[in-house]
This record gives sequence, C-alpha cells and structure tokens, in this order.
Amino acid sequence: MKKGFGSDNHSGTHPELLKAIVTCNGGHEPSYGTDQYSLLAAKDFKNHFGPQTESYFVFNGTAANVLALRFLCDRHESVFCSSISHVNLDEGGAPELLAGKLIPLPHSEGKISLQTLQEHFVRRGDQHYSQSRVVTLTQPTELGTCYSRDEIKSICDWAHSNGLFVHIDGARLTNALVHLDCTFKEMTTDCGVDVVSFGGTKNGLMMGEAVLVLNPSLSSSAKQKMKYLRKQITQLPSKTRFISAQFHRYFSDGLYLQIAKHSCRMAQLLQEGLAQNTAVQITAAVQSNAVFAVLPKEIVKPLKEKFFFYVWDEKTFECRIMTSWDTTEAEVQEFIHELQLLTAKK
Amino acid sequence: MKKGFGSDNHSGTHPELLKAIVTCNGGHEPSYGTDQYSLLAAKDFKNHFGPQTESYFVFNGTAANVLALRFLCDRHESVFCSSISHVNLDEGGAPELLAGKLIPLPHSEGKISLQTLQEHFVRRGDQHYSQSRVVTLTQPTELGTCYSRDEIKSICDWAHSNGLFVHIDGARLTNALVHLDCTFKEMTTDCGVDVVSFGGTKNGLMMGEAVLVLNPSLSSSAKQKMKYLRKQITQLPSKTRFISAQFHRYFSDGLYLQIAKHSCRMAQLLQEGLAQNTAVQITAAVQSNAVFAVLPKEIVKPLKEKFFFYVWDEKTFECRIMTSWDTTEAEVQEFIHELQLLTAKK
Amino acid sequence: MKKGFGSDNHSGTHPELLKAIVTCNGGHEPSYGTDQYSLLAAKDFKNHFGPQTESYFVFNGTAANVLALRFLCDRHESVFCSSISHVNLDEGGAPELLAGKLIPLPHSEGKISLQTLQEHFVRRGDQHYSQSRVVTLTQPTELGTCYSRDEIKSICDWAHSNGLFVHIDGARLTNALVHLDCTFKEMTTDCGVDVVSFGGTKNGLMMGEAVLVLNPSLSSSAKQKMKYLRKQITQLPSKTRFISAQFHRYFSDGLYLQIAKHSCRMAQLLQEGLAQNTAVQITAAVQSNAVFAVLPKEIVKPLKEKFFFYVWDEKTFECRIMTSWDTTEAEVQEFIHELQLLTAKK
Amino acid sequence: MKKGFGSDNHSGTHPELLKAIVTCNGGHEPSYGTDQYSLLAAKDFKNHFGPQTESYFVFNGTAANVLALRFLCDRHESVFCSSISHVNLDEGGAPELLAGKLIPLPHSEGKISLQTLQEHFVRRGDQHYSQSRVVTLTQPTELGTCYSRDEIKSICDWAHSNGLFVHIDGARLTNALVHLDCTFKEMTTDCGVDVVSFGGTKNGLMMGEAVLVLNPSLSSSAKQKMKYLRKQITQLPSKTRFISAQFHRYFSDGLYLQIAKHSCRMAQLLQEGLAQNTAVQITAAVQSNAVFAVLPKEIVKPLKEKFFFYVWDEKTFECRIMTSWDTTEAEVQEFIHELQLLTAKK
Repeated sequence: MKKGFGSDNHSGTHPELLKAIVTCNGGHEPSYGTDQYSLLAAKDFKNHFGPQTESYFVFNGTAANVLALRFLCDRHESVFCSSISHVNLDEGGAPELLAGKLIPLPHSEGKISLQTLQEHFVRRGDQHYSQSRVVTLTQPTELGTCYSRDEIKSICDWAHSNGLFVHIDGARLTNALVHLDCTFKEMTTDCGVDVVSFGGTKNGLMMGEAVLVLNPSLSSSAKQKMKYLRKQITQLPSKTRFISAQFHRYFSDGLYLQIAKHSCRMAQLLQEGLAQNTAVQITAAVQSNAVFAVLPKEIVKPLKEKFFFYVWDEKTFECRIMTSWDTTEAEVQEFIHELQLLTAKK
Repeated sequence: MKKGFGSDNHSGTHPELLKAIVTCNGGHEPSYGTDQYSLLAAKDFKNHFGPQTESYFVFNGTAANVLALRFLCDRHESVFCSSISHVNLDEGGAPELLAGKLIPLPHSEGKISLQTLQEHFVRRGDQHYSQSRVVTLTQPTELGTCYSRDEIKSICDWAHSNGLFVHIDGARLTNALVHLDCTFKEMTTDCGVDVVSFGGTKNGLMMGEAVLVLNPSLSSSAKQKMKYLRKQITQLPSKTRFISAQFHRYFSDGLYLQIAKHSCRMAQLLQEGLAQNTAVQITAAVQSNAVFAVLPKEIVKPLKEKFFFYVWDEKTFECRIMTSWDTTEAEVQEFIHELQLLTAKK
Repeated sequence: MKKGFGSDNHSGTHPELLKAIVTCNGGHEPSYGTDQYSLLAAKDFKNHFGPQTESYFVFNGTAANVLALRFLCDRHESVFCSSISHVNLDEGGAPELLAGKLIPLPHSEGKISLQTLQEHFVRRGDQHYSQSRVVTLTQPTELGTCYSRDEIKSICDWAHSNGLFVHIDGARLTNALVHLDCTFKEMTTDCGVDVVSFGGTKNGLMMGEAVLVLNPSLSSSAKQKMKYLRKQITQLPSKTRFISAQFHRYFSDGLYLQIAKHSCRMAQLLQEGLAQNTAVQITAAVQSNAVFAVLPKEIVKPLKEKFFFYVWDEKTFECRIMTSWDTTEAEVQEFIHELQLLTAKK
Repeated sequence: MKKGFGSDNHSGTHPELLKAIVTCNGGHEPSYGTDQYSLLAAKDFKNHFGPQTESYFVFNGTAANVLALRFLCDRHESVFCSSISHVNLDEGGAPELLAGKLIPLPHSEGKISLQTLQEHFVRRGDQHYSQSRVVTLTQPTELGTCYSRDEIKSICDWAHSNGLFVHIDGARLTNALVHLDCTFKEMTTDCGVDVVSFGGTKNGLMMGEAVLVLNPSLSSSAKQKMKYLRKQITQLPSKTRFISAQFHRYFSDGLYLQIAKHSCRMAQLLQEGLAQNTAVQITAAVQSNAVFAVLPKEIVKPLKEKFFFYVWDEKTFECRIMTSWDTTEAEVQEFIHELQLLTAKK
C-alpha cells in the first residue's frame, strides 16, 4: 500500500517499540498480566498519572472504551457522549451491548460543552428514563480539536457535584499533550477525570491500550472488579508482556512525546500548506495530528489516487487528512504540491 | 521467571514467527483486515481446511470461542459443552454474556460422548427450556486427550440430523494433528465440523486466533454477519497484519507441524519418564502436549520450587505438566530426575 | 386520586372488559397460552389484521416493543426511531439491553419523514457502524399525531427495498383508526407493516398487549422463535386467559371502536374549548386522544391542583392533556371552564 | 378443560382476590406503583417480613427471580443454584441473559446442602473463573420439599461470612409456612435471607409477584436501583393497583394461610391415599402442595385421560401430582379411587 494520510493505524510499529517486543521475547513469563514488563508499565502509568493510578491492558481502543464504561456504569445506567464520538458511531454497538445506553449530544468542533450537558441532564429519578452515570469526552476529539484543561475541569466539577463520572477516550491522548503543553496528570487527574482509555495503537504501538482508573475512590472497586470485567468482555491478553513491554519503552527516554510531537508538527505543516491554497477551507482547529478541510470536489478523486485519505462528509467533501509517527516532511510537501497542481488546473 | 511446565502461553513468540512480525512492519498497510498478509493467511486457511473456509482473526482464544458461538446461536439458544470445558470454567462468563446459556455435560477423560448428548437432548419445543443449537467440543480436550475422527464424525452426523451445529475449540488444534496423523481438513471439515476456533497463541504465536467457518451453507451468513459480530464484541484488530503475518508464516515450510510435533514429543518423553516412577499415577491418555498425573502430595511443593506447573485438583494432587514449543529434552530429563530424587527421599 | 387528564393508564379497567375477566374465571384452563380464550383472541387478530397474523400476548407496552424489536433485529443490528419515541425516552434502556442500538432521528410533530430516513441510511457495509435493520414508528405518535396510510406505505416500500423491516409501536393504535377512518388491516398489513405492538392497557384493558407479526414471510420464523424470545425476556404470562379474554371482548360488538371514538371525541372537545382561549397555543394536530398545548406559565400550577395533567416541556410549559375511555363531557367542560377563569384572572 | 392436578396455575383467580380486583376498579389511580393499594400492600409486606422490607411488584415469577438476581449480582458475577431449579431449567435462559452465569449444583430431594456449596466454592480471586455472588434456594423446592429454618440459617451464615447473598425463589412460599409452622419473618429475615421472590400467581392471584429486599444493608441500594432495573427488564406494571390490591386482600383476614393450608392439606390427603397403594412409590417428602410418585407405567395414560397431571421423568414414570386452592376433597378421593381401579386391573 502506498503511504498516505488515511489513518495513524495504517502505519506499522515504531522501530523502537518493535525492538522492545523483540527484546522481551526471551524465556518464560507468567501469562495474564503478572510478568515483569507489566509491572514496569504499571509503574510508568503511576508516574505519569499519579500514584493512585490503576492500569489494565487490553488489545484495542474499542475494548478500552467499553471496559471503562462498563466499569463506571451500573447495569441500568447510561452515558452522555458527543453525537460524533467514536463510541456512538464507530464501535458497532459494542458500548450499548456491554456498557449501557448512549445519549448522544450536540457538539461544537467535536467538543461537548458544559451547557449542553446541563441542558440534557433531565428527568433524574424518573424510573422510565435511563439515568446517565458517565460523561465521555474524546481527547483529542474526533475532529482533532482539544478540550482545554479548564473545560475538562469544569465538566468534571459539574459531573462530580451531580453524581456522575468523567471518562476520556484518549486513543491519541499523547497528541493532546503537545497542544496543551502540560503533563498527563495535569490534563487528567488534576482536572478530576475518573477513568481514561489510554491509546497505544495509534501512537506507534503494534497493538495495546490501557484503561486507567485515576479517581482514588474508585481504586478499591477497580481492584476488585476490573480483572473480571476485562476477562468477561474477552480482553484479557495471555502473553501480556508483548503489550506492556511496548508501553514501558513508550514511556522511556521521552519516546511518547517525541512521537506525538512529530505527528502534530506534520499536521501543522500540512495546515500551513493548505491555508495558502484559497480553494481549500480548513474546518476545525488543528490541535493534534489531523487536518479537516473541505477540498474542491473534482480534485478529491485524483488526489486520492496519489495519497490515501478519507472523505469525512460525502456531501460537503470535507476530508480528514491524518499524519502519523512515520509521516515525513517530504510526504507533506508532496501532498501540498500535488493539491496545488490539481487546484491550479481547475 | 524460570522456565517450567506451567502453560504453553508462558513461552514467548517462536523466533520464526517473531521474524515474520518484524518483516511485515515496513510501510503502510490498510487497517482492519484488508492488508496483504491477511489475504495470504486467509488463503492458507482455505488450503488447510477446504476452499469454502471463511476466516476471521481475533486477538485471543476466549474471543474466538465467543465469536464462534455468538455466530452459531440465535439470541435465545444454548450450547452443549463438557462440564470442564474452557468455555464453562475459564472464560469468566463471557459465553453466557455474549453467546448463550451453557448446558454443561458429564465427560470422560475430557470428552463428551454421543450417548451423553443424546440423553441430554430433551424438552425440544418446550418454551420454558432454552433450546440448544450448538455442541462445542475441545480438541485436544482440557485433559490433553483427543477425539478420534470417528467420534467427531458421529457427533456431527447426530447434531446435523437434529438441527444442531458443531463447534471445535481448537486452542491447540495443531497438536491433535500429531496424534491423529491426518490433515486439518480430515479432522474437521470432512467430519462435518461447522466452525472452528483455531488457536495461535498456545502454538508459538505472540497472539492471534482465527474463527473458521467451514460449513459452506453458513458461508453467506458469515460473510454478512461476522464482521459486525466481531466488531461488536470488541475484537476487530486494527493493525491486523501483525496477526495474519504470523499465521502466514506458521503455515509456511511446515512450521505448524514442526512446532506441534516438538511439543507433543516432549510430552511423550515426560510421560515415559513418569511412567517409570511408581509413586506417580498418570490419569489421562497423553495425546497432545500435556501430562496429567497424580504426584505424591509431599513432593509437589519442593518440585514446584524448581519447575513451575499447575496443581489441577487440590484434593487429589492431580497435576498438569505442560510442554511447549520451547521445552527442551534436557528440561524434561531434569524434571524427571528431580521428581525421582524427591520421591526416593520419601 | 381525583380524576384528571394525566394519562389513559390512570383509568381503571373498562366495565365490559372487567366483566370478561370475571366470566373467564370459572374452572381450570391450561396455562401459558393454550387456553380457549387465547385461541379466540388469536382469531380476532387474524380477522382484523389478516389471516397470516401471528399474535403473542405480553403484559405491557415496553415488553411488546422490546419483543418485537428483538425478533426483528439480529444481535448486531440497530433500530431507527424518532428522538422522542417511547422506545428512546421512556423504556429505561430496555431496547438497547434486549433488542439493539437505537439511532434516534429528528421528527416533525412526532413523525419521522421518509427523507430523514434516507438521509440517515449511511455507511452500509461498514463494519465499524451498527447497521439498522428496523424502522420503528409510533402510531399515534407521542405527540398525538397520526401517520397517514400513504406515509406508512411509502416508508414500508423504501424500507423493504433496502432490506429493512417496519415496526409500529401501537400502544394506542385503535385511536389512530378513528382519525384515519379505515380498518386495522388497511392501516398496517396493507401498507406493508411487518410487526405491530398492539396496545390494550391504554385502551381500557386491565393489562395486556400483543405483538402481531403481519408479514407472512416472517411467520415461520415467528412460529419458531417468538415463544422462546418472549419467555427469555420474562414476558410469558402463566394465566394467559386473563389477558386474552379481555382482548376477545375488546374485539366483540365493536367495543374497541366505541372506546377509541369516545376518547378521541373528548380530545376534540378539549381542543375546541382550548382553541377559543387566546392565552393557549395548541402545538400539535389533535389526531387521537391527547391535546398538546402551551399554557400560560402562571396558571399551570393552580390548574393542576384541580385536574392532574403533565407538563411536557418544563421550559415552554407545553402541556399534555390526555383523555381516556372514562373521561366525561362534563369533565372536559369543567376543565375548559376552569382554565378560562384562571386565564381571565391574569 | 377438565379440572386436574397439573399445576396450581391452571386454577383461576381465588374469588376473594377477584373481588378485590373488581373493588379497586373505581376511579383514577396514579400508574406505575404510587396508587393507594400499592402503598397498602407494601405495608403488608413490612408487617410479614419486617419493617425494613422493600417490595417491588412484577407480573410473573420468572421476572421476580431475574430481577432479584440482577439486583444482587454485579455484571460479572454468577449464581449458585440447584441443577433442577426453575432458574436453571424453566426460565428459558432469562437468568443468564439478565442476571449472570448460573452454576448448577447437585441436590438432594431438591435441596442444596451447605456441604455442596462449600465444595463448589472454589477459585476465588481467579480472574478466569466467574465468581459467584448469590446462592438461590427454592422454597418449597421444585420437588415439593422444604428447607428447615436451620438449613436456611446455616446457608445464610456461611454465605454472608464469604461475601455472598442468599435469594429465595418463593413462587409458593406461603405453602412452606404451613409445613414449617412459623411466620414469614422467621423463615426468611430472621434466618438472614437477603432477597425473596414472593409468589402470588400460584397461590390464587390472577397474576402478580413481588421482589422483597429483606437485608437492611441493601435497602438504600434497592431504593436507588430497583425501579430502574425493573423498568429495564420490561416489568414495570402500569396499572399496578390490579396487582397490589390482590396482595393486600391476600394478607387480610388470614386469606394467605387459608389458601396455603387448603392446598397442602389436599396434598397430604393425596399422599395418604397413594401410600396405601402398593403399586405406587412416593419419591419425595410431601411438604407443600405437590406429591411426587412413581406410578405403574401402564396406568399413566388412562389416568391422565381422567385427570391432568405431569409426568416428571419420562424414563421412570415419576409423576408430579399438584393440588391448588380450588382442589376439592372429592376430587382427591376420586383420583385415588381411579388409580386404585387401574392398578387393580393390572
């Protein structure tokens, strides 16, 4: 497949992470999460999110979200999410099957506002109406924008004062660090976030995500229940070391930041190039590793023949152009150049 | 961790399979199963199980079983399994959550007999009683024994004539080939098996299993539904190539047989050694890569200090001693020798 | 409780239906649906909906909807509904638990348009996106309006040509007959409706609803599966005669129409009275037994002290004023008079 | 249908209970459980089971069991039950769908012993193994026997000291009072029972059961969750008064005991008659309203032509002969006489 801007999961495994896999392969390790690498990675998560952090490895992002929501919701409860969230549109009904009813809310540039939440916080105590227990935010959002720390904090404060929890779908969470220029702890734990789906696969890992329980008042319940919930949704990895060794390497020598910074810089480059093309209209703030832009209808097809990317909205020809850890500056320049040629031809 | 006889998933990844992972890492590949390696591995499964075979990759064994049963059962239907089957005892309630009610049956050396099935095939058409739709067999069984082809065929014939399907939990299916000395197709498709969970992780893969739909009359329904069912139980791998490239290598140059033969030979060696020790009683026919044996109570603890293995039954001190692709002849000899010393001391 | 306009399930049992209950009480009857009354009621449904009709009794409306949708959807499929539908807002997450994901759509006066359906019929074949299999319409809608037969037919035609089914939540279906002035068969079977939840409780029964499978191509599957699905969602009534004897009486001597006509006429009277009050704004066409109207904020409380009714929208003071089989003309006049007095006082 | 000994749900509604239904029919009542009759019946349950009792009405017995177990189990937990329990064999998989995995245990005359529970209380803390949270007992059992108060108490003590709850499926609970000659409170609350499914339908009600939460430490969670759980499994009755008015009458003037005593006395009469017939072998202690007895194979058919009853075991011709509130002494004599004639003829 020719390289392109389709998704950060079209890339392979980052060479350093692959090396970590190869290295951990010697000898026997206990299966199901008690190997030495898993202990090290658990410590890494504590370092980055606070010492109270409990971490649970799973294979992929949908599983991380579903496990987090299944843990936070009781059987009869439901979840506020944005109408374009991954949980609502891209997880094949898994959250409804395994966690609870979703209540999709309107968004602005991918973000749910506090006001929207307040307006939809209705019919509490009404037995006919499924009661929400969780707000799930995507950071960065499906449109590549980021919630500010103040936005996260004010949603957490409101949620907690109303008996709700806050979950972050952080399939690309490290990318948000670059934009917010803060630590993981400052962006999550310190704002009051209760549980995070921490993504690996879209940040260079071969596969692997972690559910992080950050709220210390949930620790004991997590220690009691999470392992069973994970097994029950079929997500207990047997040779766990091959996930955890990657995470341990990811957090060593600043590799996590290096990967995220690169992807985000490539997106900035892209944006700068596109901004100069008057035929192109950028539709959302570029705050991670994706650029959303309306391209002229007639150039989409020829451009896609050279570089793979997704048409996000078949009606407006809004497209998602996504960078990755292995996107090169040359590829970005080439893309901008080709786009330039095609729009000039019109 | 010191090497031992705990489980074949304490081993790492077979070097040849690791090499396949490293090799497939160059460049971009489409995610979610349309990469070139997945197409090759799908072809391999067709070669080994028949051209009608549809294959679906998932991360682990529990997922493969659950996906297979979810596909075969309608919402209200149930599954006949042995009382000691993995689905009943070791999958944390996932089958009941995601597939249907289990009806556990008595077994003999891990195997369900046709007669037992017939005796429990009751109350058909009774709306109060959950109706079974599937028989699931484990091959090799949880006790390391193998169903003969005749046994499989007669169960399939009976099942089909009564509107039931037959599923095989084949977490270690290749090991059964060694004992039965036949092809995959002869052991499954030709006997009438409808769906197989084909295991990789316990046969040397880093991770990865496949659900194989063998019955051609289920192909069209599989093509329609399986991808959604898999996604919905959170088991759609994104960078699928890292699973499928392993399977493709597994089937190349006879590696699959070489791995299985080695594990099984190590178990035979073990058995031969144990058989000479009158203090030890072997409790099930050794037909794959595990030996079940009652060890003298007082030697279990000191022996476990040298070699890890599981006590299967805390009351009788029946133990499971399991070999793997990386078990060496020297390790087996050392184990037998140590056991000899300990029993002599008594 | 003082009588009011709260809901048609605040009323008791219609005297004729109560008499039917008392009458059927003599002697023994087989339980679980094979009694003589159930056979008679099943015949009644065939008379009114066509000879292919299969009927399944359940206790209440939520159960009827959930059973119907569970029957129509495969495990991984989802349901188009209006955003204000009972299934989405008033069934406590039961449809998501027992049937499938809901995809709530915008509505106009409670109705989903064909165009809206077409616009949301996207991402077919995309494994990440839960695929809809059913359109559920409420007739009359939650706002008391009715789909015309043409509207129903065009939605059914579109649905069928795209592999979807159409379900009607008919908790008050008989009331729609009055407005459309046609037969049940003309409103449902002849338009192509596949399955109906037929309501009894809100039309004078003590309790009891029926799921009607109208599409003859679904009959054989209904005969095979519905009894198990019903039992499994806990809705198999044991002394079924007490539900079916009511239905049989309901359909005798035109009682069903007499009840519906009365309720609807009371709503018309109400509407006429309210229309004369300039302080009141009627917000939806009155096509069954409910009037939706914005009342002056300050009179709502004193008026509710005299007559119970629901404030539908806490922000706009849109109220639902609902009539029933036992609403009297005098009560309607009294309500209008009281409202007049209160608005005059302002 | 000719009267017989098939089941206590072949009977209609007890005349006094029917009268209560007719009486409560005047006027409007709030729906969904806040009517005056529901408040009275809730008080009755407090009187009989202790002041801490929380009661939740549902339509039928399967629903009561499922709601109770759903309340007591977390999502990943399972339930110990007897292998012949109603939940395991006669609820169509509803418990597995809505509550959790069942772990069926061997029984003696329908009862699970403490020792059996202890032997199966294994693998605690093992993430692969679904952890039981509830023991469910049937009182009287499916074979008509009763747990003594000591038996119940010792199971409750053991359960509580191991973090488990005890549920009683009491579809015919009042009948056990007759045998144990004690109060409801003495048989349940005082023994430590946590939750009871209290049956009405099999004791003369038209329909209606109640889930009773007896453990005061569960009250607050019940108040928070039960109404949502009940709605979500489709079991919130709208015109609840028609259930609760029956229960209120049931507990007035000792009607509940009168009905139970009659049914049990009829079973004793039956037993006495059968005991005199040497061709008949009674197979379980007669401690409620059923007699289990092996009848000579060749008389079963002709006897069933005169009186309906169930063959419980098709192989041994063990039959269940069940009395009800409307069984008369004459009917019992006639049955015994007929049986006598038939066995004499042989």
